[in-house]
Amino acid sequence: MFRFKPIGYVRSPYTSTKEIPKGLGAEHKAEGTLEILPEFEAGLADIEGFSHLFVIWIFDRSQGFELLGTPPSDNRPHGVFATRSPRRPNPIGLTVVELLRREGTRLHVRGLDMLDGTPILDIKPYLSSVPTESLRRGWLAEAEARKGK
Amino acid sequence: MFRFKPIGYVRSPYTSTKEIPKGLGAEHKAEGTLEILPEFEAGLADIEGFSHLFVIWIFDRSQGFELLGTPPSDNRPHGVFATRSPRRPNPIGLTVVELLRREGTRLHVRGLDMLDGTPILDIKPYLSSVPTESLRRGWLAEAEARKGK
Repeated sequence: MFRFKPIGYVRSPYTSTKEIPKGLGAEHKAEGTLEILPEFEAGLADIEGFSHLFVIWIFDRSQGFELLGTPPSDNRPHGVFATRSPRRPNPIGLTVVELLRREGTRLHVRGLDMLDGTPILDIKPYLSSVPTESLRRGWLAEAEARKGK
Repeated sequence: MFRFKPIGYVRSPYTSTKEIPKGLGAEHKAEGTLEILPEFEAGLADIEGFSHLFVIWIFDRSQGFELLGTPPSDNRPHGVFATRSPRRPNPIGLTVVELLRREGTRLHVRGLDMLDGTPILDIKPYLSSVPTESLRRGWLAEAEARKGK
């Protein structure tokens, strides 16, 4: 058993999961801030140089988990580890955001898909990408093909 | 305070952090397995279709944290949230691996940078990349330039 404490909280325009774009072709363009607790401010030094960040956070309003579930992007069930479902054994979320600017302990970012008030566990620089030509997207590519997208 | 339990463990060739390639130009080509606990096997359904996975894990042998530290890739200190240092407020690691094949609860992968026995918290499909042309790599790009790499 491992214990974690938030390093800060997300301020986003979303107060209900219904407002968050989901499913095929969903685009996350929402802007907001990552508000880091003052005691961790020194850990943000030099973060301004990165265009994109990984944010590791908690689905704090999700309850329980299901190992097989049908995501909004398909009408067939898939294993939870092959989806981004919030109902996970460890309810941890991962989002790549674009860093717009920093103001002290506030990181202004674009690409949020979390609810307002979401606890943040960690932030890391996004350093490299998998080249598009070597990426396979499993059931999601198939679901898109079936829907003619 | 949030509590998490491992869903499985990493089997990697590394038994000491000294063996893990670090710093500028480090390449992670190590192969090994992600061994998921039998109770979570159903959650792996359809994971075979993805070429790459995010693995969220614990730096279980790291102690304490430092907000400013000098990474192996530079001789200047940077904020912990602008580095991949193991000495983080929440010692959570994130690795992108290539999925080679699945054998029941074992995922054979390439690209490990974790120690053997590392606890795994979550696995997610890697769905999209930030285009190279829109990625800025902050102090890391500067450190590379200074070293003429």
